[in-house]
Amino acid sequence: MHKHTSINRQILLASRPTGKPTSDNFKLVESPVPTPGEGQVLLETQFLSLDPYMRGRMSDAPSYAAPVKIGEVMVGGTVSKVTLSKNSKFKTGDLVLSYAGWQDYALSDGKDLTPLGAIAHPSLALGVLGMPGFTAYMGLLDIGEPKAGETVVVGAATGAVGSVVGQIGKIKGCRVVGIAGSAEKCRFAVEELGFDSCLSHHDEKLADALREACPKGIDVYFENVGGKVFDAVLPLLNAKARIPVCGLIAQYNRTSLPPGPDRMGLLMGTILSKRLRMQGFIISQDYGHRFQEFQQPMQQWLREGKIKFREDIVEGLEKAPQAFMGLLEGENFGKLVVKF
Amino acid sequence: MHKHTSINRQILLASRPTGKPTSDNFKLVESPVPTPGEGQVLLETQFLSLDPYMRGRMSDAPSYAAPVKIGEVMVGGTVSKVTLSKNSKFKTGDLVLSYAGWQDYALSDGKDLTPLGAIAHPSLALGVLGMPGFTAYMGLLDIGEPKAGETVVVGAATGAVGSVVGQIGKIKGCRVVGIAGSAEKCRFAVEELGFDSCLSHHDEKLADALREACPKGIDVYFENVGGKVFDAVLPLLNAKARIPVCGLIAQYNRTSLPPGPDRMGLLMGTILSKRLRMQGFIISQDYGHRFQEFQQPMQQWLREGKIKFREDIVEGLEKAPQAFMGLLEGENFGKLVVKF
Repeated sequence: MHKHTSINRQILLASRPTGKPTSDNFKLVESPVPTPGEGQVLLETQFLSLDPYMRGRMSDAPSYAAPVKIGEVMVGGTVSKVTLSKNSKFKTGDLVLSYAGWQDYALSDGKDLTPLGAIAHPSLALGVLGMPGFTAYMGLLDIGEPKAGETVVVGAATGAVGSVVGQIGKIKGCRVVGIAGSAEKCRFAVEELGFDSCLSHHDEKLADALREACPKGIDVYFENVGGKVFDAVLPLLNAKARIPVCGLIAQYNRTSLPPGPDRMGLLMGTILSKRLRMQGFIISQDYGHRFQEFQQPMQQWLREGKIKFREDIVEGLEKAPQAFMGLLEGENFGKLVVKF
Repeated sequence: MHKHTSINRQILLASRPTGKPTSDNFKLVESPVPTPGEGQVLLETQFLSLDPYMRGRMSDAPSYAAPVKIGEVMVGGTVSKVTLSKNSKFKTGDLVLSYAGWQDYALSDGKDLTPLGAIAHPSLALGVLGMPGFTAYMGLLDIGEPKAGETVVVGAATGAVGSVVGQIGKIKGCRVVGIAGSAEKCRFAVEELGFDSCLSHHDEKLADALREACPKGIDVYFENVGGKVFDAVLPLLNAKARIPVCGLIAQYNRTSLPPGPDRMGLLMGTILSKRLRMQGFIISQDYGHRFQEFQQPMQQWLREGKIKFREDIVEGLEKAPQAFMGLLEGENFGKLVVKF
């Protein structure tokens, strides 16, 4: 099945981006495939997940996670296959969830690996059954606390996280309004994912359109976008609305604060007058210990067809930088995964 | 004991302020003392509470509470005495907590009255044992969730709410840093109230001073001020910090948004990267049903001398407008109460 080579292709962080990442920030190098020592396994990457958080790791601004160092392999979750094992817990051919990064091969002592067993569709472990699905599940249910009849709004509606947020919102009996980057994505959100409505963030009258789509206001806004989507949401929030803050992709490439007026006090005043609850979270740090709690219902929803998913598969490690840069511009359609 | 007159002095809202309220926004009128009907009582005001939230009621901007209409009596909590009763539940001489507003006399059907019994110090029902103390208690404990060893920061440190927040923080084993408007107030916060440190918000190097006073960062920021105090707090917040948003007195008199840059996205980014929880609350709406839960511990802390209080008593209804305008400028020192 797999072609065994002696070359390990790796994509390194070559330099830190200012604003949008460019191909100059990445460097493809070749090195020998490493040899596992006692207790280790050699992993061969099958799928690499590309996710917006990686933009943060390319910067050295203070963050919850250490930045990738210049010259290091870019970080990333992978589905990998054990190709050599000197660890009694793993045998050749085992599929595992790993954090091997942007490279063909990696070593592991096994402690950071999750066996995937006989999984029909392994790349889902990077999407709806993995970190993005878990992020949607905990952010919406644990922080957003949606109640039947309430209105849930989510951006990046066809993305790995947003698509799951909206579908869980529907399962919980909410009105779900998505915001996405094209008419085609919006059609998918409504027709395939079951959203009640979906608006394009390119619509110049987004604020008006959102007001029409949310006649009873907004009770939960799952924040994974920021920028003008949040601007449109803010005046529509109901008293006691909840805002899980999961990501701000619209501002990751900013190099300076936008011009005024300064609306920080306006946001504070709205939090006060509407008694809002805003809460930031990092799925691995805040909910890592609750992963099993998510697996059972999500697998059941998948079996029952209540949760659908769409993947955007890019073939070949060498395409990862371009695909990642496109992700930050919203060019992907569905969960972005690199197939090796 | 009390001099019975036939005149009811009332202070009405004469016009809505633009920016800082002025004496032109208030009007003192005299009307006949009303006569209670069947089931009603006539109340004579003993003490009137002056509180920052009243600035909001003078505006007709959208809010959780209806604005005072032009020509209506200004709203406010009072300690009042029943002087005539046609309600079997009250007798002449009873002291009650009421919401009679800025006037000498008012009628009530009794439903909005809380009997105060034989209370040694009736004005405390407007302060440490009343709405401000309750606000501090619930905001700090229910939203802020301080743990022993954590650092709590609160503004308006000698005010009705801030002074209680800080003292409860000390009872819970926290390091408590206050911010107040003068060296005298800061001395009081440290020497009398037991704060670990207190800084003046007039200090041009407030951000540096706060950093020094919080060597382990800030875990709970009880927000009752906004403006430059929040600016100094924001970079010092620890991961998973909690921010009960109770008031924003520094911006109540704003007539427009401040100049840029626009820091709203910066605040969102900080909420995300530090996984902050910010939650606005309105004590009456969110916690009205839990008032009894607060009374027992607070009365005990007062008896034990663990909670101290300071009142700023102004004599005479006619002085209320000036005292209220001073409150918005931080001129009071302790809980501001008008004595009749």
